[in-house]
Amino acid sequence: MEEALVDIEQIIAALAKGEQPYLMEELNKYLPSELIDIVYQIEEHPQYLILFFRCLDRENAYETFQELEIDYQEKLINLLPNRQLQLILNDMSPDKRTAMLEELPGDIINKILKLLTIKERAVALSLLGYPENSIGRLMTPDYIAVNENWTVAQVFEYLREHAEETESIDFIFVVNNQGKLLDDIALKKIMLADFDVQVHELMDEQFEALSVMEDETSAIEVFKRDDYLVLPVVDSNNILLGIVTADDVLQLAEEEDTEDIQKIGAVEALEDAYIDTPVHLMVRKRAVWLIILFLGELLTASAMAYFEDELSRAVVLALFVPLIVSSGGNSGSQAATLLIRAMALGEVHINDWWRIMRKEILSGLLLGTIIGIVGFFRVALWSSIFGLYDGYWLGLAFTIGFSVLGVVMWGTIVGSMLPLLLKRLGADPATSSAPFVATLVDVTGLLIYFTVATLFLTGTLL
Amino acid sequence: MEEALVDIEQIIAALAKGEQPYLMEELNKYLPSELIDIVYQIEEHPQYLILFFRCLDRENAYETFQELEIDYQEKLINLLPNRQLQLILNDMSPDKRTAMLEELPGDIINKILKLLTIKERAVALSLLGYPENSIGRLMTPDYIAVNENWTVAQVFEYLREHAEETESIDFIFVVNNQGKLLDDIALKKIMLADFDVQVHELMDEQFEALSVMEDETSAIEVFKRDDYLVLPVVDSNNILLGIVTADDVLQLAEEEDTEDIQKIGAVEALEDAYIDTPVHLMVRKRAVWLIILFLGELLTASAMAYFEDELSRAVVLALFVPLIVSSGGNSGSQAATLLIRAMALGEVHINDWWRIMRKEILSGLLLGTIIGIVGFFRVALWSSIFGLYDGYWLGLAFTIGFSVLGVVMWGTIVGSMLPLLLKRLGADPATSSAPFVATLVDVTGLLIYFTVATLFLTGTLL
Repeated sequence: MEEALVDIEQIIAALAKGEQPYLMEELNKYLPSELIDIVYQIEEHPQYLILFFRCLDRENAYETFQELEIDYQEKLINLLPNRQLQLILNDMSPDKRTAMLEELPGDIINKILKLLTIKERAVALSLLGYPENSIGRLMTPDYIAVNENWTVAQVFEYLREHAEETESIDFIFVVNNQGKLLDDIALKKIMLADFDVQVHELMDEQFEALSVMEDETSAIEVFKRDDYLVLPVVDSNNILLGIVTADDVLQLAEEEDTEDIQKIGAVEALEDAYIDTPVHLMVRKRAVWLIILFLGELLTASAMAYFEDELSRAVVLALFVPLIVSSGGNSGSQAATLLIRAMALGEVHINDWWRIMRKEILSGLLLGTIIGIVGFFRVALWSSIFGLYDGYWLGLAFTIGFSVLGVVMWGTIVGSMLPLLLKRLGADPATSSAPFVATLVDVTGLLIYFTVATLFLTGTLL
Repeated sequence: MEEALVDIEQIIAALAKGEQPYLMEELNKYLPSELIDIVYQIEEHPQYLILFFRCLDRENAYETFQELEIDYQEKLINLLPNRQLQLILNDMSPDKRTAMLEELPGDIINKILKLLTIKERAVALSLLGYPENSIGRLMTPDYIAVNENWTVAQVFEYLREHAEETESIDFIFVVNNQGKLLDDIALKKIMLADFDVQVHELMDEQFEALSVMEDETSAIEVFKRDDYLVLPVVDSNNILLGIVTADDVLQLAEEEDTEDIQKIGAVEALEDAYIDTPVHLMVRKRAVWLIILFLGELLTASAMAYFEDELSRAVVLALFVPLIVSSGGNSGSQAATLLIRAMALGEVHINDWWRIMRKEILSGLLLGTIIGIVGFFRVALWSSIFGLYDGYWLGLAFTIGFSVLGVVMWGTIVGSMLPLLLKRLGADPATSSAPFVATLVDVTGLLIYFTVATLFLTGTLL
């Protein structure tokens, strides 16, 4: 193993004299780990550090930088010229960069994000330690922030230089020296003000901000409620970190809704567009639920087997089985989708469960009565027209009518309560898909049906 | 009937002399129809007209104005001071105003819309003759338009006066003297330009605009695709009529998705939030579909009756009926929701039907095989564990396995093709709700089941 032959004395001498050609030749012979040692030796001399990094190859520069301790990294971020820093930051391996970003204070993170290319920034943000699906993943650091003590003239000067960097300049964000968000001011208001007015004189301190750690879906609600085009994002110390724009929220909302809809249809959320999803992936996303539902539905066979005796004595009962169970499934699907959507829109919450329950019991009762009457008359009519169900038509008509009433009510209650229950258990309410509710209701629907049948048909048919 | 006693000569004399107190006293004694006559007499004297309307009571003013012929109305819109016009326009009955707006050219409509209160404007737009759900209903007339020949200095002057009127000034719209949209220019770009540069020098003539008659849902796609915060709206002559902002599109997208989700759950779209919808309305929105589905499902009873003979010989067949039909319903629900959403997002179109069909046949085949095997082994296992299905277990196992395969495939095909078919027929694809597809598949599922049973069980059980 060869001994590292870094002549620190000689390097420092060359750095002091500014011997750039020599340093470029010499430094790039060393390994990053050796270069790091040099950095630690010269760290008290800012001018040496700048020259040192200027003399490194692009590869050596970032490989050295990313292995430094966080304090040194922070020092260099404040020290190095943006152009150089930009190359280093964009070249860094994303995980190293993220590890660094996680340690740095908000304002420096911000500076770094601005220096990254769009692609790298997306990567950085996605890895930044903000939880998946948090506002942090949704925001962009391209905004305009001005100091409360600036004059309007200074703001305009700043805007002329920095307007390019932001997605929207409808709102200018006001921060104090610590980067804390104080207000948002409409650019309109600034345009109408005199040039020597100071920013803080225009402030009303009325503003809304998103919290970087909050769930990103909360942004949808805020944007929808208050007609914003842009909202600022802050951390728990109210340091301004970025902005979220309505167009990004629109995309997010559509993705969320797509996921919900697919779940309602008992499909695991697809990652890509339907048309771009290959068949094997499509089958996997569907097979899981289809198998679960099939296994659940197997219970209907067992339930029916339990009543095999009744069935063999009265085969006519079998004829109405699909009708009865599907009625419960349909009313359950209705209730479930209504509740899933109402919860996604924030219209109802778990605490409203009793209010919802009462509403659904009443709805189920009315719907069940309507459908039950239709069922009753189906049997009565077929009996009188085709001369069917001789001797037991009334019992059968009542069986169908009351079974439908019971099953529809039951479906409505299960369908409306299941999304709330899932939410309570920490699961996604949309998991209570229409087919899932239908399956749940099918087994109990059979029990209701055969119990009612025993009640009305014992003595005639049974 | 009293004779109208309008002394036109005297009125004109008073108008000429500017005798305001006398006119205010005198004019307000007349009926609107009489006042209209006066207008027609003095229409060549703009200064008379202004004074005339200034002397009318608020009620007389708008009642007279709204009964005038369109040419006179247009003349007055250009003539009357904004303050006065504003009162009249806001007081007018919405239908009269709409009738007027329908006749007027785009730039005057624009002027009028700006003078209306938010509430009146919403009413006006909703009645404006733009088809329901068109971009015209979504837009707001509050935008900033500048002339291509203005200098940057003039633009800033204009902005200082008019910035209040618009929702967003990120983009300034450039029009020619006829109000035709020529370009959009980012305010950033204008801020960086010298004051004596003319607007047309900054133009790149690269812009996107929405068409006022297009369906409003098209806006969702454009906003999502290209990350806009604001887009201009033009008529067929490219006259700039308004803007649409991303926050409105977000609201629209969420409403559309809510409607789709409710339809997928076989509920007619609710007008209000779930929690605000009274029970009787809720029941009505659900009963329609529930009855339709029930009537459809009645066919299963008839289908089963057709096989009553087989059933009475082999009651065991009845036990698997819910299992078989629900498998088809579930796979159909999956396919339908996937396609409904893909169509809503513009990912697939009717023309892709063959590509989709192939994909779904393959998916259905794979899914059906998986579920079919599960079904086969259910029968085989129960047979060996519980000693059931003696003498015919293999036939029954094959019956269940192949029925499930067939029903799942059939459900997949029906579920995927129905949304496309509905779209083709001009209906909303979301009408092919999960329960609707399930019901459709149930009847055919029974036919598949009993046919397969005859194939495998004749000689043993049948």
